[in-house]
Order: sequence, then C-alpha cells, then structure tokens
Amino acid sequence: MLPGPTNVSDRVMQAMLSPVINHRSHDFAELHKNVIEGCRYVFDTKKADIVVLSSSGTGGVDAAMQSILDPGDSVVIPAFGEFSSRLGDSARYLGAKVIAPEANLGGLPNLESVEASMKQAPKVKALCVVYNETSTGVTWRKLKELKELANKYGSLFIVDAISVLGGDFLPVDELGVDVCITGSQKCLAAPPGLAILSFSEEARKIVMKAKDPKSQYFDIKRYFKYAESGETPYTPALPLFYALDEALKIVKEEGLERRIRRHAVCAKAFYDAFESIGISAHCKNLEERSHTVIGMVYPKGIEDQKFRSILSEKFWILIAGGFGALRGKMFRLGCMGEVNQQIVTATVSGIANCLKLLGYDCDPSRALERVWSALGEPTFDLKS
Amino acid sequence: MLPGPTNVSDRVMQAMLSPVINHRSHDFAELHKNVIEGCRYVFDTKKADIVVLSSSGTGGVDAAMQSILDPGDSVVIPAFGEFSSRLGDSARYLGAKVIAPEANLGGLPNLESVEASMKQAPKVKALCVVYNETSTGVTWRKLKELKELANKYGSLFIVDAISVLGGDFLPVDELGVDVCITGSQKCLAAPPGLAILSFSEEARKIVMKAKDPKSQYFDIKRYFKYAESGETPYTPALPLFYALDEALKIVKEEGLERRIRRHAVCAKAFYDAFESIGISAHCKNLEERSHTVIGMVYPKGIEDQKFRSILSEKFWILIAGGFGALRGKMFRLGCMGEVNQQIVTATVSGIANCLKLLGYDCDPSRALERVWSALGEPTFDLKS
Repeated sequence: MLPGPTNVSDRVMQAMLSPVINHRSHDFAELHKNVIEGCRYVFDTKKADIVVLSSSGTGGVDAAMQSILDPGDSVVIPAFGEFSSRLGDSARYLGAKVIAPEANLGGLPNLESVEASMKQAPKVKALCVVYNETSTGVTWRKLKELKELANKYGSLFIVDAISVLGGDFLPVDELGVDVCITGSQKCLAAPPGLAILSFSEEARKIVMKAKDPKSQYFDIKRYFKYAESGETPYTPALPLFYALDEALKIVKEEGLERRIRRHAVCAKAFYDAFESIGISAHCKNLEERSHTVIGMVYPKGIEDQKFRSILSEKFWILIAGGFGALRGKMFRLGCMGEVNQQIVTATVSGIANCLKLLGYDCDPSRALERVWSALGEPTFDLKS
Repeated sequence: MLPGPTNVSDRVMQAMLSPVINHRSHDFAELHKNVIEGCRYVFDTKKADIVVLSSSGTGGVDAAMQSILDPGDSVVIPAFGEFSSRLGDSARYLGAKVIAPEANLGGLPNLESVEASMKQAPKVKALCVVYNETSTGVTWRKLKELKELANKYGSLFIVDAISVLGGDFLPVDELGVDVCITGSQKCLAAPPGLAILSFSEEARKIVMKAKDPKSQYFDIKRYFKYAESGETPYTPALPLFYALDEALKIVKEEGLERRIRRHAVCAKAFYDAFESIGISAHCKNLEERSHTVIGMVYPKGIEDQKFRSILSEKFWILIAGGFGALRGKMFRLGCMGEVNQQIVTATVSGIANCLKLLGYDCDPSRALERVWSALGEPTFDLKS
C-alpha cells in the first residue's frame, strides 16, 4: 500500500519475460507504437507527442525542464511539499529563475499568490505545478484556473502528474497542458523505471528550436526524431516497455473514467473510515484531498517507526511515513493502480487493529462499516 | 547476436518476477548491497564507490561527465567512432572544451597524438576514452599507457567500458581508472535499463566538492549520500536490479578471468572463421580487435539489408549493420555475455551459408573447421 511503487498484477509482471529483441527492429517499433497509443489514451490526448524515458519520474521532470527552459528564464513553481520543491530544484539547477509561491504543508498556495508570482518577472516562460503532492496527499484540482493564469501571462503550462495520472482526471488536450509528466509505477500499476511525457504543439516548437541540448540522455529533440521510425535514441529498458504495454491494455479494458471513479470511491472509503475512529486527514480541505495518496495524521501516542513495523510484520501491510518535516507526524498510503474493495477493507482493518494494539482507543469494526458504506456495499452490524 | 542487448538467461529473466518491494526498506538495502558487491567484483575494485543508475549507458556517460566537469573545463576525448563521439558530445553540451584527437574508423589515434592533445590546454581536467568502440569493433588495450599520460598531465582518467566490462580485462583499481561506466545489457548479460559507474577516491572528492548539480537525476553526490543507507535517491527500476543481481551472481560463479578468457576464445573463433572464407575484419590491427564486438567488412556484392533480413528470417540470427558512415559496409555481432561454443558454431554456420545463398563463393565447412580449431575442439573433415 505504498504511495508508489504499487503492486503489479501477475499479468503485467509476466509480460517482462517477453524476449529481448533488437530495439532497432520492426518488432520494437510495433511495441513502441502500442505503448505510445496506450499513453495517449491515459493522457486523454489526440494531439500531443508522447516520449517514454527509461528513468524514474524525477528523470522525466529533469527532461521536461531541460527541454523547455534556458538559463535566465523565469518560471513560477508553487512549492507545497517535497516533490514541488524538486520540480523547482530541477529548474534552478538549469540556471532558471524560480519564483515559488509557498503554502503550509497540507495545503495549496491560493490563486492570488500564484498570480502575484506571475507578475514578478517581465516574462514567465512556464507555470509548472505538481498536480498531486505525494509528500502531503494534496491534489491541485483547480488546474483549469492555473491554465487560465498561464494563458493570461503568455506562459506554458507544465504539470507533474507522477503520482496521479490514471487515478484522477487530467484531460491533457482539454486542459491545454503543454508538458505533462508521469511515471510507470504509480496509478498505471506497472513496475518502476519509466517516465512518460506529453508535449503540446507549442511545447514541441520550443523543443525543436533549442540549439544544443543540456544533456544527451534527456535530449527530447532526439526522442522526437527517433520516434518517427518507432525507436528510442538510446537502448530502452525493454522489459519495462513490455510491462507498461500490458498495464496500459488493462487500463483500456477497464476504461479510464471507471478507473478514475474507482480511485475516488476507494479514497473516500479510506478517509471516511479513518475519520470515523478519530484519525484526521493531513489535508484539511475536502476538495484538495488526494484520491491516490491518503495522508493521515498520527493520533497522540502512536510512534511512526513502531507502528509501521508492526503493521508490516504482523499484518503484512506496507505503508509510508511522512516525508522531510512531516516525518513521524503522519502516515501515507497509496490508493493507486489495482486498489479495490478487498484491498481497502484489508488495509483499514489492519491499520485500525494495529492502532488498537498499540493502545489507541478505537473500534475497528466502526471503521470497517464506514468502508463498506462508502464502497456502496450493504452495511451490517459486526457485533450482532 | 546483437552487440547488445544480448541474450539473457532464463534464470536472470525469472529474477525480474521477484516482488515489488519498498525501495526505502531493509529488503531493498540488502538487494542494493548485493548488487554493489557484485559490481565491485566485475569492476575488479575494492576501493571504488559504485553507483547504479536506472538509465541506459548513455545516461551513465552523461552522469559521469556532469559529476566531474564544469563549463570551461578542458578534456581530451579521442574520437574514433560513434560512441567516442557521444562521449565528446556529453562533455560539450556541459560547456566543456573538448579536444578530440581523431583516427580513421577501424583504428585508434596513436599515443603521440593523444599526448599532443593533452598539451593543447594549460590544464586538462580529464582524459576520457572509450575502451571498446561498439560502432567499429576496436578495443583500446593500451589503457595503461593512457593512464600514464593522464598522470603526467595531472588529469583524471575516465573510461567508457559499456560494451566490454565483464568480457575483457579492466582492473579498475590496478589501472587507476577514476570513473568507469558500463551497462547492464552487454557482457553482464542482464536486461537493458541500468548503467553502472565506479568512482575512485579522487573522483569522489571532485564530486563532493561540486556545488549545484547540473541535473537532479544524475546528481552523483545524492547517490553517494543515499547509498550510505542502502538506498537510491530516486525510485529504482526494481525488476532490473533483481535481474542484475542474478546476472552478477552468474559472473561470480563462472569467475571473471574464465569469463574473459571465454570471450577471447570465442572472438578468435569468429575472426578466424570469417577470415578463412575471405571476409576481413574491419579492424586491421590484431591487437586492437575487440573480443566483444566482432566487426567484419562485407565482401563485394553482398547487400546489408538483404543479407541481414535473410539471416534473421531463414536462420533466426540477429546481427547489426554498420553505424553512421559505416552503414552498408560492415556487419557487427556481439560476442558477449552468454556466448559459447554452440552459439559461435551456429552463428558462423548461419552467416557463411547465408553469404553463399546470396552468391558469395565460399565453403561454409571451412569456416566451421576454423571455429572448432580455435575453440580447441578436435577438428575433422566435414566432407569425409
């Protein structure tokens, strides 16, 4: 139940055993084409160029920044957790001037402060935002308003959707996202090791205009060129391409909208259940609560390390603790990919019973009733 | 029989099916430790720091250059093929001044021209060399002399050993290689997707002294820091770590020296066999011929595309053509990883018969006799 990498189905794991083929062959071009088409479906785009990188999501973020920004460019990157800070670092290391409206952990900067930031430079090249901040469990649902701001100031709109794409709405074409980044190991439920990026027509123009790249490996222009013949410029992590292809087929079979609804329903079940036994969500604003990373504040007296090791050893449930300044204060669990009724039930049951074992006064059956009620199952009194 | 990715044994493929675990856990730290130890064995080093990156070999080259070079630094990078050019590009994109003594394709620049290059800048930060040029089948065996040059001019010594490490000698400590780079999918016979780097104490000092990194993903300083607790800074391509671990165990079981000897014997069998039927090696100098990438010049009248597609469709043997300016002029095959007597025999048999089929006048049995003779097997007259 980690907030990524998530569990991977046997079907996807087995796909990795497909033969090691020549990445300069027709067979690979076919696989590459299928992966790109599957990505277009989950990015909900008909127009964007898709690039798959053999790297983690952070590599994808670096590649996006390197392909769009030049030293001296100004960018606005709201900072409200570890991963939005990383997005800022990625731009800063390139020599870009980063303007970062901040928010307290667990919240989001308001639109006014973002607009004030957009005014701080004569020309802001891009407004870059983390859609779902994995370190706090906060989702920026008002992407439309951010896009309008980007338009108003003539800036590109870049979205880091690593821990959310495929688990919450992100229609790339409709929203006008210029560069969108995700990873294989989160809501797509494939193994870790691939980053996926989309580029709008306008973003593509900027990429193509660039002279020397900042690095070879993340030189997106070269990926565009090789994609014309169904190739990647450098040796791809082939087994992971096979796995992603299979994972994308599964997304298509389920249907993107159903998949997103499933994530929302499971997330509500988690929040309702924990709140019913007095555990509060780290994110106070209901509208900003993530459907893919559930962040809850520890009740008094529960010690993070002890709780998570008993949960792992006695209940076989792996969850994550807090990140950075939130270490010891909260726990985070992934509501991603394969999450379903059975998984939510088992997780809530395990966590509530583990808390009770550690002396927290609560009634696990109460939490479970809230799970079933949120999941739309008939509720019944466990004690009867 | 591609010059990478090479065939991967079932044992290594199956290892990828190990469970997706938390990369911030004791289990991963254990796996990470084993991989690092296995890498130390193949790099023949006790002292160097090892970093495993989830990227292709080119990503590893970028990471090495980014971690050592600053804009304005001078480096000497001999250019004698596609991959040595890439090494140069990697440095150039960082703003380094690249001095590149050149050689004709199929050969190596001589030591005098390298030394002349070392004198062209008041201070050369590093002498960087491709040990085995995959695009031409040439190996730079006189690494010791290059290291002496590097020492003489107070430069670091960086070796790109992507298509050769594990298949030819490269004792990193003994030779004093400061940064060595390899990939998972070549002589180590693991699937593609990981780059491995070693850093000497001196290289480590330079890495640690750097202020801002050039990118997050290739920020080696951060890899050093996370390695202290058995972690990687970013989500690792976990299935590929499992596979590499298994592949490294296989190397250890065979023994590095035996493995290198096996590559040498198989390479000799390939060269002898092809030459016996009038096909000449692209690399004329016997001492410079690669033991891991066998590059042969097409005889007159054989058309590359046609030859390789018949070889693939009728004989089920995949080999590579020439790269860049050598396209259509030569074929290249990998003598890597799992290569053995059966594989050499089947490959030579297929290639000789395919050439004959296309009208080249040769006697395949002659080539096979040379194979068996080189492999130390009793020879016998096929026609009797």
